[in-house]
Amino acid sequence: MQENGGRLVQQARIVLDFNWAGAYTKPSPRLYPHQWSWDSAFIALGYATYDTSRAWRELSSLFAGQWSNGLLPHIVFNPELNNYFPGSRVWRTELSPHSPGEIRTSGVVQPPVHAIAARRVYERLLREDSAGAEAFAEQIYPALAAWHGYLHRERDPDGTGLVYIRHPWESGMDNSPLWDGILQRIRLRPGQVPEYQRLDVGFVAEEDRPVDAEYDRYIHLVRHAADRGYDEAAIREDAPFLVWDVLFNTILCAADRDLAALARSVGEDPTSHEAAADATGRAMNARLWDEESGLYLDHDLAAGRDIEVYDALSSLLPLYGGIPDPGRAGRLVHNLESSGFFVGGDGYPAPSYARYGYGYSPVKYWRGPVWINTNWLLMHGLRRYGYEEHAETLRSTIVSLVQRSGFHEYFHPATGRGHGSDFFSWTAALLLDVLSMGDTDHAY
Amino acid sequence: MQENGGRLVQQARIVLDFNWAGAYTKPSPRLYPHQWSWDSAFIALGYATYDTSRAWRELSSLFAGQWSNGLLPHIVFNPELNNYFPGSRVWRTELSPHSPGEIRTSGVVQPPVHAIAARRVYERLLREDSAGAEAFAEQIYPALAAWHGYLHRERDPDGTGLVYIRHPWESGMDNSPLWDGILQRIRLRPGQVPEYQRLDVGFVAEEDRPVDAEYDRYIHLVRHAADRGYDEAAIREDAPFLVWDVLFNTILCAADRDLAALARSVGEDPTSHEAAADATGRAMNARLWDEESGLYLDHDLAAGRDIEVYDALSSLLPLYGGIPDPGRAGRLVHNLESSGFFVGGDGYPAPSYARYGYGYSPVKYWRGPVWINTNWLLMHGLRRYGYEEHAETLRSTIVSLVQRSGFHEYFHPATGRGHGSDFFSWTAALLLDVLSMGDTDHAY
Repeated sequence: MQENGGRLVQQARIVLDFNWAGAYTKPSPRLYPHQWSWDSAFIALGYATYDTSRAWRELSSLFAGQWSNGLLPHIVFNPELNNYFPGSRVWRTELSPHSPGEIRTSGVVQPPVHAIAARRVYERLLREDSAGAEAFAEQIYPALAAWHGYLHRERDPDGTGLVYIRHPWESGMDNSPLWDGILQRIRLRPGQVPEYQRLDVGFVAEEDRPVDAEYDRYIHLVRHAADRGYDEAAIREDAPFLVWDVLFNTILCAADRDLAALARSVGEDPTSHEAAADATGRAMNARLWDEESGLYLDHDLAAGRDIEVYDALSSLLPLYGGIPDPGRAGRLVHNLESSGFFVGGDGYPAPSYARYGYGYSPVKYWRGPVWINTNWLLMHGLRRYGYEEHAETLRSTIVSLVQRSGFHEYFHPATGRGHGSDFFSWTAALLLDVLSMGDTDHAY
Repeated sequence: MQENGGRLVQQARIVLDFNWAGAYTKPSPRLYPHQWSWDSAFIALGYATYDTSRAWRELSSLFAGQWSNGLLPHIVFNPELNNYFPGSRVWRTELSPHSPGEIRTSGVVQPPVHAIAARRVYERLLREDSAGAEAFAEQIYPALAAWHGYLHRERDPDGTGLVYIRHPWESGMDNSPLWDGILQRIRLRPGQVPEYQRLDVGFVAEEDRPVDAEYDRYIHLVRHAADRGYDEAAIREDAPFLVWDVLFNTILCAADRDLAALARSVGEDPTSHEAAADATGRAMNARLWDEESGLYLDHDLAAGRDIEVYDALSSLLPLYGGIPDPGRAGRLVHNLESSGFFVGGDGYPAPSYARYGYGYSPVKYWRGPVWINTNWLLMHGLRRYGYEEHAETLRSTIVSLVQRSGFHEYFHPATGRGHGSDFFSWTAALLLDVLSMGDTDHAY
């Protein structure tokens, strides 16, 4: 633990307290007032280090928005707030027979980190209160099983082992350069351009049209799904955006293994979850590995070809899921060392998009900045394969970025300056997790 | 003519005088000090309205840099200036047996507007001095024939009718979103990133890396060609960038027809030039027309697929070459009217990239701004097909942009504000051409 670890722990808990909304934790005080799916899972990992009760409530609140078909929406709206775009009127989830009536949600998902968080919460609970742990597992396991069931059934209808995403927001890496090619071929006429009032910008100046062009397409894709009543069979028939995403499938693979562990703890058969994890890992190696570059690449199902982008950090993250064999892991690490990810040089590893990549920006969200959650995933992946020195670099970077710049949403890879929201919940939560390493029997 | 046409004419001539360097015209006073290929052709069109002698000298100076294989380089360097990047040391044209020894040039080309300009200069000369006209044609025709011969022979080795370009700079639309997908898949490791000192920016801040990422790839492609001694057969074997470009082939088709006219005037056989123009037009209709969108699309030869970008103004410019049949022309005009090109609404048509397109920027060079040369091409194309009202809109926009904002390099489509260089030569030259319309027997 760092010298001032105690103070950092205290500050991180203050951030989470500040964002605690009574039943869930806002990702940040102002910009993100509702409950977000993968944010909540990362946040629960942080609560697991000191307040398992809140971790439980966090996950319970999220799953209250789960659809009857298992879909776990990326936003569960706080009904008391009406100031977020795109709000529930854009989503029109009432068009689906599966959406919950009383709770408003979005109609897309985010990477399924939840079983990973739930397993950690369960193991912490076990040490505190075994009856509580049992009650938690019995509540959360069926919900998680339904969530994963939805993904494998609806998002992988042919049983390939890979699930698709149908919106950039489902990747969690909203504006990654990964999506540029697909978004560019979506052609909008003036009459098709959504009319809306974004709240994250004020008056939309003509100079902001680059960002609007992205938002136009995000909303266009929301409409595409809503117009089909969120029926997956209808959506995938002509979805402009349909992708096998490396990060999403990596997390699903890891989460299926943790779901198997939870199944065991409640006396259920873990076999199907283990088989699903194996199938995903195999399919990633068979279909998403690119031998020439030594990277895992996303696959554009709508166009029927790989997404030829070689500079996304997510291409390396199958390390987290234990997916590559040692030889492939070595090639991923070689790419980490030699592709502008700021490892072994000046700056702060690891940018979400490599600095020499086309479309890199050190301050634009998922086009370059360092994020604590992807650093956390990469740190665990490197440790898993025995790259202790790199793992320690990632770990210490997480700590030093927060020490230096505060609990920001993301960070400039060259300067370490914080950008985006301050008081960002998952930055605090994952810092707590990192600072607790060594205090736990959990295998890192 | 506009009310103050006389004053505008005077101002435009002052701009050209200011940029006149003794043997050629600088595109702008500071940013572009050498001679550029398609700039000179547009500039010659302006001189043709009042100073045929200078028009002749302009073209002669450019063709002094022509290579022995016919390649007409996009830059002929002024040996007295040594402050432009990429300068002759980056190009290493001495590696080609065809490059001129004493004159330094680049090793890429630009759209072949030259025969179009030369024919206009010839026709003006004919009215002034028929012996001079004859001397001009006899000097320029063989050079133009060699230039077109190079294109058809080296850039269309299979005789498809379509010539390829091998660098974004060859399109004339350097940073168009058209090239994003190709540039994005070019992966540069830190050791492969060119080290250079760009002169159009001072200290390169980390925030400028997006632009650097483009430049890195431009230089990477220059090296690719130079490393192969500018041998086209070797270059096209593994060129990362190899494109059938709509605008380049449109201009070549139109220029081949003008070259045929010049051939007749010097007693040469025009048949081969007419046949070449026909072949290009046919091939564009067969291979570059996209029936679904009603647009001509560029084709990425390296990837073996169309470039699925539906928002580039260049997709409409085959109108200039008389390439579409009336039905297809109608579809192009419908797209012009309905795709965010500012026709029939607020703003100034026609942006180089439609305002709802992904990657649109109203101020970034070829990613949105209005350029006088593409407006000029579109105006002529619309007139050719009888869309008089639209043609008049384009004509009056050329005049009003300059009246409002000066002789800028390019203009903001919503506000009309001038951007890029001021005192930009082709803006002045094409304005002179537009203001002379009606004074000439030339068919517009």
